[in-house]
Amino acid sequence: MDFVLADGISILARTPATLRAMLGGLSPVCTDATEGPDSWSPYDILGHLNHGERTDWIPRARIILAQGAVLRFEPYDRFAQFRESEGKSMADLLSEFEVLRAGNLATLAEWRLDADHLALEGEHPAFGRVTLRQLLATWVAHDLGHIAQAARVMAKQYRGAVGPWRAYLPIMER
Amino acid sequence: MDFVLADGISILARTPATLRAMLGGLSPVCTDATEGPDSWSPYDILGHLNHGERTDWIPRARIILAQGAVLRFEPYDRFAQFRESEGKSMADLLSEFEVLRAGNLATLAEWRLDADHLALEGEHPAFGRVTLRQLLATWVAHDLGHIAQAARVMAKQYRGAVGPWRAYLPIMER
Repeated sequence: MDFVLADGISILARTPATLRAMLGGLSPVCTDATEGPDSWSPYDILGHLNHGERTDWIPRARIILAQGAVLRFEPYDRFAQFRESEGKSMADLLSEFEVLRAGNLATLAEWRLDADHLALEGEHPAFGRVTLRQLLATWVAHDLGHIAQAARVMAKQYRGAVGPWRAYLPIMER
Repeated sequence: MDFVLADGISILARTPATLRAMLGGLSPVCTDATEGPDSWSPYDILGHLNHGERTDWIPRARIILAQGAVLRFEPYDRFAQFRESEGKSMADLLSEFEVLRAGNLATLAEWRLDADHLALEGEHPAFGRVTLRQLLATWVAHDLGHIAQAARVMAKQYRGAVGPWRAYLPIMER
C-alpha cells in the first residue's frame, strides 16, 4: 500500500484516545504486566511512545526537511522510558502523550508537506538513507505495533485462566 | 495470573471505546484491509465481536448457571459476521457493539457472581468440561486478542512504506 499522508495522520491522531480508552484507570496488575524478563508492560510502552514524541519522529523530520550539513539522525534510546517515566503514574503518561502528540501533529500540519518534501532523505544511523515518507510511515506503523503489543501483553496474563480455550486464542502464542 | 472478575470486567467495559477510538471514522482503506486471503479486516473483527455478544459469552454463561439437563454449548460460528454485517457500516458495527456489550455487562452485574458460581461447569463442544471462570477469562482475552489483531492488520499495510525500518518493527512479521 502506498503511504497516504492523510490516512497516516488520521491514525496518529487516534492513538492517544485509543490508549486512554484501553488503559486509563485500569489496575496496575494489568498495566504493569509484561511478557517476561526484558519485555515491556503497557506502562513501559507509554513511556517509550512519549520518548519518541520528544526525540524521534519530529526531530528526525526536521533534520530531513532542513537538508543541512548533518543529515544523520541521533540513535534512538529504546530504554529511555525507564529513566524518564520515574515517579509518573499511568495517568500522567497518558496525558503527556496526548499533549506531545497534539503538538507534533500541529507541527506536521504547519509544514504542509507535499510529494517533494516526502521524497527528501536523511541518514539513519543503522541503515543509511531513508526518506521522510518512510519515516512518517514508520511513525504510524510504530503506533499500531505498540497498541497491538499492549493488548497482547494484557491478553497473555490470561494464559492460564482461559484453560483449554488457549488452543483457540492465537494471541497467546504470538 | 488468577482470574480476578473485577479486573476482567474493567477490561471488557473498555473495549467498545477502545475500538471506537482506534477505528471510528477511519478510511475504509484501513478498516477493510486484511493480512491476506482468509484473514480478517478490522470491519470483519467488529462483526465477529458482535456475533459473540449475541450468541456466545452470555448465552454460554446462562447454560452454566442454569445447571440444567443440557450443559453443552452451541458451537460458535466463526463466519457469522460475513452474513450478519451485510449492509452495515463500520459506524453501525461500533454502535451495535457498544449497546450489546453494555447490556451484557449489566446482565453480568445482576448475577452477582461469587467463587461458587465461577467454579460451575458447562460442556464445550470441542474440549469438554470448562468452568464459568474459564469462559469469562476467555471473553476478556478474546477482546484483547482482537484489539491486537485490528492494530496488527493495519500496521501490516505499511510493510512496504516503512522501507528499511521493517527490520525494527516486529509487528510486521507476527
